[in-house]
Amino acid sequence: MAKKIGVVLAGCGVYDGSEIHEAVITLLAIDRAGAEAVCMAPNIDQMHVVNHLSGEVAEGEKRNVLVEAARIARGKIKDLATVKAGDIDALILPGGFGAAKNLCDFAVKGADCNVNPEVARLVREVVEAKKPLAAVCIAPALVARVLGNEKLAHKLTIGTDKGTAEALETMGAQHVSCPVSEFIVDEKNKIVSTPAYMLAGRISEAAEGIEKTVRVVLEMA
Amino acid sequence: MAKKIGVVLAGCGVYDGSEIHEAVITLLAIDRAGAEAVCMAPNIDQMHVVNHLSGEVAEGEKRNVLVEAARIARGKIKDLATVKAGDIDALILPGGFGAAKNLCDFAVKGADCNVNPEVARLVREVVEAKKPLAAVCIAPALVARVLGNEKLAHKLTIGTDKGTAEALETMGAQHVSCPVSEFIVDEKNKIVSTPAYMLAGRISEAAEGIEKTVRVVLEMA
Repeated sequence: MAKKIGVVLAGCGVYDGSEIHEAVITLLAIDRAGAEAVCMAPNIDQMHVVNHLSGEVAEGEKRNVLVEAARIARGKIKDLATVKAGDIDALILPGGFGAAKNLCDFAVKGADCNVNPEVARLVREVVEAKKPLAAVCIAPALVARVLGNEKLAHKLTIGTDKGTAEALETMGAQHVSCPVSEFIVDEKNKIVSTPAYMLAGRISEAAEGIEKTVRVVLEMA
Repeated sequence: MAKKIGVVLAGCGVYDGSEIHEAVITLLAIDRAGAEAVCMAPNIDQMHVVNHLSGEVAEGEKRNVLVEAARIARGKIKDLATVKAGDIDALILPGGFGAAKNLCDFAVKGADCNVNPEVARLVREVVEAKKPLAAVCIAPALVARVLGNEKLAHKLTIGTDKGTAEALETMGAQHVSCPVSEFIVDEKNKIVSTPAYMLAGRISEAAEGIEKTVRVVLEMA
């Protein structure tokens, strides 16, 4: 039977949701490998809505993370609160500001951030079950918070940004610098991370690291 | 210098805008080939907003096609009205209902549809300039309307759907059936089309036809 790979979405759009390129490249790589993507998102309001043309916050506008994430998933998406580690063989978190604004509040609070309780629960469950977990772009920040709270030593990358790397270390991660087209594996905890648009200047650069990440996740799953 | 490939977006989401997978796969294929994508969309309101979780129209909600399309383009997008055929080496139109609801009203009026005047102008200009044009999924419907109005004989595919194929022929196209992983080339007019999600059951199927389409467009550009 095809391996089921959970994909945690955080809305639809780099500035207030999931980075769309990262999410789609992840879905394509999973499908091309003969595995099945299980898209999910929390059923909560977005922190805010950003006009992606102007870059400004759209004051007064409200959107729901699960409803917007359904755009990337073509409607086939689950409420993350209903998903358990036993339902999937691995879990991948694409990036985009939504991972740092909706799945947790790292974009606002940095190393003092809180993670959405259901997202934190699923990340903990997957790591405890020794199933592979991958975090793309800025998503490693929430993984550092969840595993740091558990006092679990672990290794992650967000690329090369010093300030962000230091915040991850403050939360309990060991940060390893990584070029855009590569990935870092924490073999003990089966955690993979790749910088993608933390460093990518073009979509093909993001794709290279994500495709390698999906490949190694599937090998470990 | 890198070839500039115009990509016409129609919003962000399969049911009321651009089909996100088709758009991203197009952008990735262009970048991987060393060409430059020039994203654009008309600065108009969407026909409506569809909740992609429920599939229902979100009554009372309004979104702008250019602003939403900017999500797929990560903010780097032009108002289509400002783009001329001379600015680009080829033009690609991904699909999704937005191509049939926002770029034209084929989804409502079928073979009696009208095309947004600026979209029609750019399509006419590109074909007259003998630059390659590609239409993915349902986007061939608007190409058939524009070229049919010009009494220009041309060849297109929307896959195998009989009713849609007949509507294209009513508008003046010669419809050719095509499997999901393939494409049709109208050599005389340099027009390429591929069914993508008109037929695709999974993202990798859509990707195969789109990647081939981008390759042949770049060869002709």
